[in-house]
Amino acid sequence: MAKYTIGVDYGSLSGRAVLVNVKTGEEVASSVYEYPHAVMDETLWDGTELGPDWALQHPQDYLDVLGKTIPAVLKESGINPEDVIGVGTDFTACTILPVKADGTPLCFLPKFEHNPHAYVKMWKHHAAQDKANKLNEIAAQRKEPWLQNYGGKISSEWAIPKLWQVLDEAPEVYNAMDRWIEAADWIIWQLCGKETRNSCTAGYKEMWNKRTGYPSKDFFKALDPCMENVVEEKLGTVITPLGEKAGELTEKAAKLTGLRPGTAVAIGNVDAHVCVPAVGIDGPGKMLAIMGTSTCHIMMGTEEKQVPGMCGVVADGVMPGYYGYEAGQSCVGDHFAWFIDNCLPASYYEEAKKEGKNIHKFLRAKAEKQKPGESGLLALDWWNGNRSILVDVDLTGMMLGMTLQTKPEEIYRALIEATAYGTRAIIENYREHGVPVNEFFASGGISQKDPMTMQIYADVINMPIKIAGSLQGPALGSAIFAAKAAGKAAGGYDDIFEAARTMGKVKDTVYTPIPENAAVYDKLYAEYKTLHDYFGRGDNDVMKRLKALKAKQAQH
Amino acid sequence: MAKYTIGVDYGSLSGRAVLVNVKTGEEVASSVYEYPHAVMDETLWDGTELGPDWALQHPQDYLDVLGKTIPAVLKESGINPEDVIGVGTDFTACTILPVKADGTPLCFLPKFEHNPHAYVKMWKHHAAQDKANKLNEIAAQRKEPWLQNYGGKISSEWAIPKLWQVLDEAPEVYNAMDRWIEAADWIIWQLCGKETRNSCTAGYKEMWNKRTGYPSKDFFKALDPCMENVVEEKLGTVITPLGEKAGELTEKAAKLTGLRPGTAVAIGNVDAHVCVPAVGIDGPGKMLAIMGTSTCHIMMGTEEKQVPGMCGVVADGVMPGYYGYEAGQSCVGDHFAWFIDNCLPASYYEEAKKEGKNIHKFLRAKAEKQKPGESGLLALDWWNGNRSILVDVDLTGMMLGMTLQTKPEEIYRALIEATAYGTRAIIENYREHGVPVNEFFASGGISQKDPMTMQIYADVINMPIKIAGSLQGPALGSAIFAAKAAGKAAGGYDDIFEAARTMGKVKDTVYTPIPENAAVYDKLYAEYKTLHDYFGRGDNDVMKRLKALKAKQAQH
Repeated sequence: MAKYTIGVDYGSLSGRAVLVNVKTGEEVASSVYEYPHAVMDETLWDGTELGPDWALQHPQDYLDVLGKTIPAVLKESGINPEDVIGVGTDFTACTILPVKADGTPLCFLPKFEHNPHAYVKMWKHHAAQDKANKLNEIAAQRKEPWLQNYGGKISSEWAIPKLWQVLDEAPEVYNAMDRWIEAADWIIWQLCGKETRNSCTAGYKEMWNKRTGYPSKDFFKALDPCMENVVEEKLGTVITPLGEKAGELTEKAAKLTGLRPGTAVAIGNVDAHVCVPAVGIDGPGKMLAIMGTSTCHIMMGTEEKQVPGMCGVVADGVMPGYYGYEAGQSCVGDHFAWFIDNCLPASYYEEAKKEGKNIHKFLRAKAEKQKPGESGLLALDWWNGNRSILVDVDLTGMMLGMTLQTKPEEIYRALIEATAYGTRAIIENYREHGVPVNEFFASGGISQKDPMTMQIYADVINMPIKIAGSLQGPALGSAIFAAKAAGKAAGGYDDIFEAARTMGKVKDTVYTPIPENAAVYDKLYAEYKTLHDYFGRGDNDVMKRLKALKAKQAQH
Repeated sequence: MAKYTIGVDYGSLSGRAVLVNVKTGEEVASSVYEYPHAVMDETLWDGTELGPDWALQHPQDYLDVLGKTIPAVLKESGINPEDVIGVGTDFTACTILPVKADGTPLCFLPKFEHNPHAYVKMWKHHAAQDKANKLNEIAAQRKEPWLQNYGGKISSEWAIPKLWQVLDEAPEVYNAMDRWIEAADWIIWQLCGKETRNSCTAGYKEMWNKRTGYPSKDFFKALDPCMENVVEEKLGTVITPLGEKAGELTEKAAKLTGLRPGTAVAIGNVDAHVCVPAVGIDGPGKMLAIMGTSTCHIMMGTEEKQVPGMCGVVADGVMPGYYGYEAGQSCVGDHFAWFIDNCLPASYYEEAKKEGKNIHKFLRAKAEKQKPGESGLLALDWWNGNRSILVDVDLTGMMLGMTLQTKPEEIYRALIEATAYGTRAIIENYREHGVPVNEFFASGGISQKDPMTMQIYADVINMPIKIAGSLQGPALGSAIFAAKAAGKAAGGYDDIFEAARTMGKVKDTVYTPIPENAAVYDKLYAEYKTLHDYFGRGDNDVMKRLKALKAKQAQH
């Protein structure tokens, strides 16, 4: 009898369950549920106004995803819940909430239901930027050694800046919470009735390190004396590696989902990192780029190297037994969308309409005909700052080489090429710091829909690119971790790498570098790198000065 | 009885006559005649194919302008030809043709009528680029001292590269010509029956210098032994300063034009330089920018300084008794047009249509609202290379500061600002080399139609800008020189400066720098200058390398 697992992927606006055959990786059924409260970024559900850069969610929506989508995939597939041997989940991160000792979100208590700080702070809640700045300043002054594990900078999106904001702006919430917990771990708590903390979010978002633990009490005290014991008081010290079983489904959760009580539940996970086994990656040196509006690069290594400009290195942060490395590009699909919205002339729309073509396809058909270097254009892909390898939000876009003959499709292609150079910079940066990158995989919308871009990437990085075989990578990844949590005896796997090899999928199409293109892109990349360092490493801080002037002029 | 003069302006596609009151400067009548042969840049009139970058004209068209437009203005105004005391003309340059000793163009002879090299080579005939390159190389090797009078580089548009091309490709034409003469001087020959050569084209286009004459026989011999005596054999050694009388109208020319035989004819002139008196400029340090698709900057100085990057310094090159300085920007109006054609999104066209506005005005209304520095953008205005002060056609455009919030109107304004920075670079370059620039005038289409751009220029250069009072600046300028040629006794002027002050005109509107804008633009210009030197003076020749790669890739 075939066995199945269910992976539940919690995205920014909806949750999706996928029911997967454990032996074949076949995705048998899937179901999506959109969060009724979506993202609360202007007002709370009750109309309470939120400040700029806030982004909240409602934890009830997460529970509803379980109650709606799991029964739906069971029904759609007709699979007997007895044959579902495990459940795994993944979440956006750092998406985090204050809860009581029993796991009840503070916002579920009448006392706090109108208090914005009692709700889930979503990953893109950026209102703790001043706290992040102060934290970085203090950490740098104190020469905190862990800072280099995060490329030298902590993001305002992470757990401690957000918690510090709560302490500062809503001490009543800070004092009332027993736990400050990632939604990734909270949902597991709801499934199996006990608190766990996964190594991925603990490492990437809570500044925990397997070898050295959290930052010292002295450091937290330097932030605010009230936070001296924050680790014991609000966080957790027991961190479980990815790939472990968190527990078993409670009666309550079984009732909610329609699954059998006692079904294995995998430890919590993160939507990007969980994609790695979904493409069959089973070891170090294999980079996965998840390419959408922005790109996240996940890879494993055998050593803990301090690589400047990456987002983090975390033991067991991707798969157990390896160091997980994460890097990122903050502007990829957004970059191309900006161009289409702001730069594409009316004549192109008309022509595309006449030919009955989608505007992206129309443009791609024109851009595809160009040879590398034929436009004479070169861009720096910093329209949304630079995440890796410069970690600098104050950098801005640059393009050069324009003439009166320059065409829109040439600019479009130059923007695509720029993001490919950005990826190459990340790869080379790893290599220069002793972290091998031997294979390259891509998932996400762009990898599925845009062969021209994928060929450009292959030519620029001069490596073959394998493409994810599933459109639902995170959910598939969660289902793979669920199969490991269930274990071999139950019909799953004792080895997560074996599970990944068996259930993970890539397409037959591989984008292979074209040698003559790669040779030209080598030259162009050298030019990119020179400008990257000139504008990005302090030779000429014109971008920062212009941005400061812009802010000043906008105020008047 | 009021007296009048007629100015005839020979442009690239048409000739225009304007009849002007000598005492008031009033433009009483005007008439335009389009050249029937226009620009022959693909085939000769008989279908003979031309190579790339060729641009020819037919001299019969120039004669027809005289025969059509002068009678037309006489008729329109009802002025008695007796009261027309002088004729002046101006021409594009270097627009040049081979003629016999009696002034007959070679192309008028049956033997040569199918030979493209027998026709007028227009200013924008660029097919002698390899000759210009070779000439510059030889001149630099020989350390020819006159090279620095032209900013260190001779253009392919000028007389000697074009003549050398004739020698190389059509020796039969070279040998048959008795004179290689600017159309500016040839038209005067047709009017008054004798050959003259004006100091403006001789100085700016034929490498003649009042103090030192032409380059040496040795130099010409180094180009080609056949050219050793080119000055005596093909050019002319008697050079007449601007402002002089060339002669008097012949019977034949009187018949053609309907004017009185014996009417004074001014020495030949050039369309840009002749605009100077038309705005009333009567001395040194007053710069006139003629702003259209490109911009030409004309100014007088009291000393002959070698200023790197200018187009030329010529004694009597603008008005007699002063050194005429010329500089240029190769991409101004063309720059804005490129943006409108290639970068403006469909949504803007739709919105403009809905509001019933012209797209330029619509865009300007949006751009006008921005404060200096508010976009965070900065551009180098090199979409068509850089004429002054870098004299480098291989430089290309650059823009930086883009974010995902950048709007089209911000890019548009940044392009305008970039051309203003280019003008400031020219002004500062003169000052740094000891040539004062004290006042600034603007003529040409942009100066008349675009108040936002003119205010930006005033703020960037931090000088008030006076605007030409006539839409027909060159023709008015030619009429002013005609009044000087006629002389006071005939009702004109003995002093060209007095003529300029009396007949030249500026508008009442002056664009005055706004101090707070000027202060911000000081900072932005400093950033521009840093990037200008970084990309333009050899620190990073990325633009040239990209252009070379582009050429190579386009060939395959």
